[in-house]
Amino acid sequence: MTTNRQIHLISRPSGQASLENFALVSAPAPEVGEGEVLVRHHYLSLDPYMRGRMNDGKSYAQPQALGHTMIGGTVGEVLQSRNKAFAIGDKVVGMGGWQEYGLVTAATIGMLRKVDDSQVPLSAYLGAVGMPGVTAYYGLVHIIAPKAGDTVVVSAASGAVGSAFGALARARGCRVVGIAGGPDKCAYVVDELGFDACIDYKQHTDAASLSAALQAVCPQGIEGYFENVGGMVMNAVLPLMNAFGRVAVCGMIAGYNGTPIPMATPQLILMQRLRFQGFIVSEHPQVWPAALAELAGLVASGALRARETVAQGIDSAPQAFLGLLSGRNFGKQLVKLI
Amino acid sequence: MTTNRQIHLISRPSGQASLENFALVSAPAPEVGEGEVLVRHHYLSLDPYMRGRMNDGKSYAQPQALGHTMIGGTVGEVLQSRNKAFAIGDKVVGMGGWQEYGLVTAATIGMLRKVDDSQVPLSAYLGAVGMPGVTAYYGLVHIIAPKAGDTVVVSAASGAVGSAFGALARARGCRVVGIAGGPDKCAYVVDELGFDACIDYKQHTDAASLSAALQAVCPQGIEGYFENVGGMVMNAVLPLMNAFGRVAVCGMIAGYNGTPIPMATPQLILMQRLRFQGFIVSEHPQVWPAALAELAGLVASGALRARETVAQGIDSAPQAFLGLLSGRNFGKQLVKLI
Repeated sequence: MTTNRQIHLISRPSGQASLENFALVSAPAPEVGEGEVLVRHHYLSLDPYMRGRMNDGKSYAQPQALGHTMIGGTVGEVLQSRNKAFAIGDKVVGMGGWQEYGLVTAATIGMLRKVDDSQVPLSAYLGAVGMPGVTAYYGLVHIIAPKAGDTVVVSAASGAVGSAFGALARARGCRVVGIAGGPDKCAYVVDELGFDACIDYKQHTDAASLSAALQAVCPQGIEGYFENVGGMVMNAVLPLMNAFGRVAVCGMIAGYNGTPIPMATPQLILMQRLRFQGFIVSEHPQVWPAALAELAGLVASGALRARETVAQGIDSAPQAFLGLLSGRNFGKQLVKLI
Repeated sequence: MTTNRQIHLISRPSGQASLENFALVSAPAPEVGEGEVLVRHHYLSLDPYMRGRMNDGKSYAQPQALGHTMIGGTVGEVLQSRNKAFAIGDKVVGMGGWQEYGLVTAATIGMLRKVDDSQVPLSAYLGAVGMPGVTAYYGLVHIIAPKAGDTVVVSAASGAVGSAFGALARARGCRVVGIAGGPDKCAYVVDELGFDACIDYKQHTDAASLSAALQAVCPQGIEGYFENVGGMVMNAVLPLMNAFGRVAVCGMIAGYNGTPIPMATPQLILMQRLRFQGFIVSEHPQVWPAALAELAGLVASGALRARETVAQGIDSAPQAFLGLLSGRNFGKQLVKLI
């Protein structure tokens, strides 16, 4: 019988997440019932939102249950099928979780989607042509809604969302400025992703210093900001927002560890008539088809060359996830499972 | 020759505004040139936005020039006219400033508007049927956009904006909860303005305590919040906002004195997918006709009985303004000039 190795959440973090919150568990690969599909996962996606699920308490989603396999997006191929819509060998993307094999049941079959890996590599369906890409699209197109010539800024610019944001904004004629951590990431953002500029937040110890550096590369101010991190970076960007600016709030990773970082200057919301909009891309299914079509085109043409950091083996997932939370990944963080 | 007494701004506050920032100046009443109108002011409006104008620096409006008459809304009657659109005796509302007589020139004639004081008292055109009323309308109707049954909350509930907000929200079937300072104001908000509940923020020394009191009268959470004050009150309301809640940001009086109060929990913008929208009502002229029509109807029918605090004489304006900033007024703060 095939063994299915899984990562369970076994305790909730108090403060920073740690390896002790996770356990590697071996279970038999599941039996396939009528209407069900068994998927062998090729890649698991690691994403910041998972940190929020590890907490108990009020959030936009149910907390991850203790003693169960961590949730997460996966791509793979169909190994067994008792469902007419899927054949053995089909490449599929779904929410298979932190495990080597995923059983797709009646409850989750609606989230399984066949994909074509002839033009776009399979792993891209977890990044640029998946949830992170659509996240960038929704924030840029539906919240920031820029005109050509607008200056737009994104934090965590070298990541999966940030890189897609840059390509989508360049396609709309925007000046695109990134914020990332470290000279390598900043060089990649400018040289490979084609941003107009990128500021290394690690060179700055306070918001005022970071803000001054941003101002130098945003001489006309900022019309749109895509917020992936919160905290000091948000406090550095806000004073540069122009009147009627829009802030798409997608991530507040700086506050996930139980120590929320205040917004220093909320009065600017009034003074500059800013709009802040928090969003979760899964709540906007109507935008996915148009977003995925544009993103697949950008990847196929080479306009979007998103970098990946790939950990090997399911047992490496917890350590890779902690690295993601502290910014040690470079681009989309994946775990290769085959 | 008639004397025109005026209040000039003679210095900018560092920290709290004080009487020393103002001077009473006597000037001759101005001569009326071709196309111009001289208005004798009956009432001057005092409003929190004026505090922002006293500062130098980046804001949505030019700072008030030193050595000049303070800006402000006024109602009065036409005393002399060399403009065919206005006749002697016409009742008018405009931006005449802190003075007894105002010369309306070619540059400002577009802001002068004739009003009818047969159904609505003249002073109401500075409050419920004027800029404060339209401010409440824009925030409620165009930003919060509530459904019947939604819970909406407004800070500074006993003031000109808050009282209009309450009447407009009641007309739309909302549960309306106010926040005000002191038992008298709270009793007025419930008993005379018809709010469902009102919380006295002065009974609470921190946001957590105020939040618990609000939660008791908002058992289903809050769909819309009209922000007039910022600071501790904002930090008490945010944790109670329901998913997809809207916050209309109209005032941040708590931060005007040079000490901005941070937003304690910006991560809630993401977790609850909140929308914040700052606005200045003068930038939305298209909503004024519909808003004024509805507000005049609410006043004429008695559904909106807004209270006024009236200081007597132009020399009382600075003290009355400082009282407004510290919440000593009760309802719309006016200065009677005749």
